[in-house]
Amino acid sequence: MKAEIICVGTEILMGNIVNTNAAYISAGLAGLGISCYYQSVVGDNDARLKEVFDESSKRADIVILSGGLGPTEDDLTKETVSRALNKKLILDDKAWKQIQKFFEKRNLKLTDNNKKQAYVPEGAKVLYNKNGTAPGIIVEGEGVTAILLPGPPGELIPMWDNQVVPYLRSISGECFYSEMVKICGSGESFVETDLKDLIDAQDNPTIATYAKTGEVHVRVTAKAGSEKEAHKLVKPVVKEIKKRFGSKIFTTDESVTLEASVIQLLFENGLTLAAAESLTGGMTMSRLINVPGASNVVKMGFVTYSNKSKRKALGVKRSTLEKFGSVSEQCAKEMVKGCASAVKADVAVSLTGIAGPDGGTDEKPVGLTYIGVSVLGSIKVKKYLFSGEREKIRESATAAALTLLRQCLLESLPGAAGEDTESGV
Amino acid sequence: MKAEIICVGTEILMGNIVNTNAAYISAGLAGLGISCYYQSVVGDNDARLKEVFDESSKRADIVILSGGLGPTEDDLTKETVSRALNKKLILDDKAWKQIQKFFEKRNLKLTDNNKKQAYVPEGAKVLYNKNGTAPGIIVEGEGVTAILLPGPPGELIPMWDNQVVPYLRSISGECFYSEMVKICGSGESFVETDLKDLIDAQDNPTIATYAKTGEVHVRVTAKAGSEKEAHKLVKPVVKEIKKRFGSKIFTTDESVTLEASVIQLLFENGLTLAAAESLTGGMTMSRLINVPGASNVVKMGFVTYSNKSKRKALGVKRSTLEKFGSVSEQCAKEMVKGCASAVKADVAVSLTGIAGPDGGTDEKPVGLTYIGVSVLGSIKVKKYLFSGEREKIRESATAAALTLLRQCLLESLPGAAGEDTESGV
Repeated sequence: MKAEIICVGTEILMGNIVNTNAAYISAGLAGLGISCYYQSVVGDNDARLKEVFDESSKRADIVILSGGLGPTEDDLTKETVSRALNKKLILDDKAWKQIQKFFEKRNLKLTDNNKKQAYVPEGAKVLYNKNGTAPGIIVEGEGVTAILLPGPPGELIPMWDNQVVPYLRSISGECFYSEMVKICGSGESFVETDLKDLIDAQDNPTIATYAKTGEVHVRVTAKAGSEKEAHKLVKPVVKEIKKRFGSKIFTTDESVTLEASVIQLLFENGLTLAAAESLTGGMTMSRLINVPGASNVVKMGFVTYSNKSKRKALGVKRSTLEKFGSVSEQCAKEMVKGCASAVKADVAVSLTGIAGPDGGTDEKPVGLTYIGVSVLGSIKVKKYLFSGEREKIRESATAAALTLLRQCLLESLPGAAGEDTESGV
Repeated sequence: MKAEIICVGTEILMGNIVNTNAAYISAGLAGLGISCYYQSVVGDNDARLKEVFDESSKRADIVILSGGLGPTEDDLTKETVSRALNKKLILDDKAWKQIQKFFEKRNLKLTDNNKKQAYVPEGAKVLYNKNGTAPGIIVEGEGVTAILLPGPPGELIPMWDNQVVPYLRSISGECFYSEMVKICGSGESFVETDLKDLIDAQDNPTIATYAKTGEVHVRVTAKAGSEKEAHKLVKPVVKEIKKRFGSKIFTTDESVTLEASVIQLLFENGLTLAAAESLTGGMTMSRLINVPGASNVVKMGFVTYSNKSKRKALGVKRSTLEKFGSVSEQCAKEMVKGCASAVKADVAVSLTGIAGPDGGTDEKPVGLTYIGVSVLGSIKVKKYLFSGEREKIRESATAAALTLLRQCLLESLPGAAGEDTESGV
């Protein structure tokens, strides 16, 4: 089964809003195993919308549209699609009553325009809307089914989850299953080279790689007659990927982030964490604290951007700063040591580097970074050279710090690493 | 002049990533006064990409593509577009040298795949990439110009700003001038209501609003025969907006961020800054430190996520935590006071709140946040209730902290506020 998505709205074409609806619907379709090869965006314009809808109808079994169901004259998605499918619009009494109730409840005045929202194509399945006034619509035409959804995500998301997904499940014949293998500490081209034979031979399951800052995600998706069979097809491929990347794989759970995997490792081993950040200025700690439950392991963080604060808060020696500079292996080492000891944390991480755009020299270029990790007193410092603009360098450094933290934890906790390998991660 | 946008990538069709590139390019085109009636997304598939590209080429003068310029076999945007435009791919020596240098500098091994990225369509203008390996390309075909950009936003955005915009400006017959009025501390619907008469009457210049977390940006764009004339049309509208929003406007310069405006205010007044963050966990400091030159004013930051760290590092009283809890006006006050005094900073900011998803009660719901600001010993604490998921709440709190910092600085420094009003911002 093939679906296409058309998002209707001038505000998307003007760049006023980011098209999160398309991403939400796409992810939902992928989860249902419904192929989606095209997304389109078009303004509130009858001729252009009809052109795009006709094109999509030829290619797909289902066309999902969002937006353009509002009460104003601009809003014409329903009218255009009904005309394209040769359906008359008729008043839906239940929808009209709900709209009136919606207004009463909020002490708002109904305008003539609002009745327009209660008209639906003849024979349509109406998706009643608890979170707004525009009902959604499923209308089956010749060779194509159109699904019309309201534009505001607060209305679209619950309507999708509660009404559209059950409908699509009921008409879909196939089952899909996918796993996401997330790898840290390897670039995308290396991952692809290492997986080339699998990628070249892919058919069912399919293998796709996604590059993130400091991470590569590999999605393995299979389709079959039942979810169990699809699962069976995915399993050996994921096992093979695990064999090739070993402990660089931090999760196979789509919802787990790199920072969550670090928090989890600390939590499981009863370890506490502190951080001392110079160039990242709190970004590493902020990512860690975004994990619900971070409070169980995070003790404290320092943003020590100035040399003075490195000396005062972390006890970095003046002579170290004078002799080697603040962006040096020695400084990163003293930062992480001082941080762990000041906070009495089991584990600490330190970052110091040159974020640019100024401050680089031939010897110490922009992007040069030292990251230190201390696990129960054992310290490791690693040197990096990141590229890009200031923000990109800081983001890369943060991802590298999380990766190094995880690696040092696995190395220092043979139990954790062993368990990890045995369970296949 | 008409443009269309085609974003290439299976990860967008699968819903793995939100298509922020389309929004960025669309907003850029709107700023240049170039019409954009269609956006499309298609996967890394030769036949489907060619179909969409051919369709767009018929309708538009310029087709802008993002993604699919990577080193792997999946990546085929360049190959497909070159074939559609009947252009041979030839090796660009400079691009190849840059790629080699990129790898050398990082001590990475070149794979055979990487040379593929240095091939460009004959006669193309090459957009060299400082932030990655894939060069961008501008290639003029019969009746249509294709602009190919790398998919990662960290590469696309600087390439768009520094190379594509000047190119589009140079080929556009008309002159455009736009200013971006950035407002903090007002919601989008309030801004729209306050500007309704101007928006309803808009023609030339046009007025568009963009909602950001904690900010609203208003773009005023005029077209005319010369930039000077366009400037003249924009000026009175911007003046009127300034009159309506006063000191809530923190800049009219597109490139200035809220955090940069705060750093600038501190720098101009010779003030130093410290921060104590609980729920935001370093996010506020990280945003401030992202401003080049932040080192001139930022002294130090604390991430005091635990109660113990609030007591130890900031001197928050145990009795305060017991009586009022860590998410309270009293705690925010003691945090900011203790932070300023520990660091001997002129200005300090503190944040404490409940980020969720757990930990909320009827009395103290998820999203409740207190932000404290101290300017030369004078302290202000403000209460907020933010909504959304954990990350959204933390981002909203960070934006509110920067807004409150700026407001307190303007109030405490009558010189700054006065000067600010006189100069129109």
